[in-house]
Amino acid sequence: MVAFEPRNVDFRPRVEARFARQRFLSHLGCSLTFVAPGTVDIALAFNSDLGHAHGCVHGGVVTSIAESAAACAALTLAPAERDVITTELKVNFLRPAGEGRLVAQGRIIKPGRTLMLCQADVMEERQDQRVHVLTGLVTVMTV
Amino acid sequence: MVAFEPRNVDFRPRVEARFARQRFLSHLGCSLTFVAPGTVDIALAFNSDLGHAHGCVHGGVVTSIAESAAACAALTLAPAERDVITTELKVNFLRPAGEGRLVAQGRIIKPGRTLMLCQADVMEERQDQRVHVLTGLVTVMTV
Amino acid sequence: MVAFEPRNVDFRPRVEARFARQRFLSHLGCSLTFVAPGTVDIALAFNSDLGHAHGCVHGGVVTSIAESAAACAALTLAPAERDVITTELKVNFLRPAGEGRLVAQGRIIKPGRTLMLCQADVMEERQDQRVHVLTGLVTVMTV
Amino acid sequence: MVAFEPRNVDFRPRVEARFARQRFLSHLGCSLTFVAPGTVDIALAFNSDLGHAHGCVHGGVVTSIAESAAACAALTLAPAERDVITTELKVNFLRPAGEGRLVAQGRIIKPGRTLMLCQADVMEERQDQRVHVLTGLVTVMTV
Repeated sequence: MVAFEPRNVDFRPRVEARFARQRFLSHLGCSLTFVAPGTVDIALAFNSDLGHAHGCVHGGVVTSIAESAAACAALTLAPAERDVITTELKVNFLRPAGEGRLVAQGRIIKPGRTLMLCQADVMEERQDQRVHVLTGLVTVMTV
Repeated sequence: MVAFEPRNVDFRPRVEARFARQRFLSHLGCSLTFVAPGTVDIALAFNSDLGHAHGCVHGGVVTSIAESAAACAALTLAPAERDVITTELKVNFLRPAGEGRLVAQGRIIKPGRTLMLCQADVMEERQDQRVHVLTGLVTVMTV
Repeated sequence: MVAFEPRNVDFRPRVEARFARQRFLSHLGCSLTFVAPGTVDIALAFNSDLGHAHGCVHGGVVTSIAESAAACAALTLAPAERDVITTELKVNFLRPAGEGRLVAQGRIIKPGRTLMLCQADVMEERQDQRVHVLTGLVTVMTV
Repeated sequence: MVAFEPRNVDFRPRVEARFARQRFLSHLGCSLTFVAPGTVDIALAFNSDLGHAHGCVHGGVVTSIAESAAACAALTLAPAERDVITTELKVNFLRPAGEGRLVAQGRIIKPGRTLMLCQADVMEERQDQRVHVLTGLVTVMTV
């Protein structure tokens, strides 16, 4: 696990402001639960609007919070004058996400100047266990 | 372009029923606009709940409709006794999706018995042009 | 199918020179069979050094020619003062590649200034048919 | 880090036999350096036939050893009566691979009955440091 130096000391309010402007995330019911240089967690409690044909959370929702956590993790390391956009992502669905609380963790693997590569994982908390429901890689470009 | 034979003549009501059960898609405002063997289109009109920090549609929304179109396309070719689940996807974001109508097209590339590979593309309709906003590949497993 | 304008009229000798310097490709036995703005084909005749446990061509070989065709396709559209490097790729193996001639086609989907997205496909020619053995997406960065 | 139970006590000779049959890997100069349930390492010393336009190792070579390590890792967990084939992979190139020794590590993330998901990483050993040159995800199907 690498420790990263932020290139902008105000990384935390910056991530919070971006998160607050993302209406889709608040609309889903997401909250920002951890922000550190190179790592961001986003949590989402189940509600029935997230549902899928089989009574579990739609894969697009799980992917959305993974992507958002990754993009926010990249933002913690971006210089103050640059914004970030996601250019591509790849995810594998390990298990269906059910009615537990989801926690997405975005973690920077390589903080390049132009491209940052992030790992994204989503865990579902079911009673006393955490189940790994998604893993993926997200590329974010600074612009 | 390959023409596919459905393995279940009732593929259309099956896709419609699955789509109707996906509360997340109706919650976003999606509609099923085309269903044929191996190809499904899903459309989504802009509304401000889909929004992202920059006033455009969240990448997770665009990915969600792409994934859904791909999974539905796979369902058109699935045998009657088997269901489908998405196991992995990879998307590239070509341009930000703005306030036009989005149309996701899922198209089967390889209809294997266990795994089906689908191409997914999302176009945004802006006045008199169609802009390509996402392309990707989605693997769907029959179960 | 989009027609692309090269940003460097000498795109053809540039691709040929790059290909000639790639010892791994000539070592495999590859040849450059088509070069146009935004599209490059690379062919590879079977030989037993490419083999895999099952008597077919190793997936890494098939991926290598797909990636090379994509990177060369990007080079046809790069400005004269910029080089290209592949940053990521995703491929799906549709069928095992056997003892026929392989042809990889790289085709630019989006020729951005910093990032170019390429589609890559590999066909195997077996007697009088062409079989699709790999499809994928390759991101190339200009540097 | 999860500890896995092999479903076939003879997993080691099985991986060794498969590796020995892969002529492409021996042709490159690869060796199998670690085999345990769910984890396999493959090493490759630099030689000039692996080269790329810029004097470094071709991305296809690095991808090939990553894919092979992942497929062998899946084989350690496969039942005796089933073989494995790679269905898709996604890799990000973190840095160019130079003239140091490469070590690819494949590690199972999810050992499903039909599909196994593997993480693949390639490190380059340069004098007294290890540099991360590739990370990716590989899906392997048991057949």
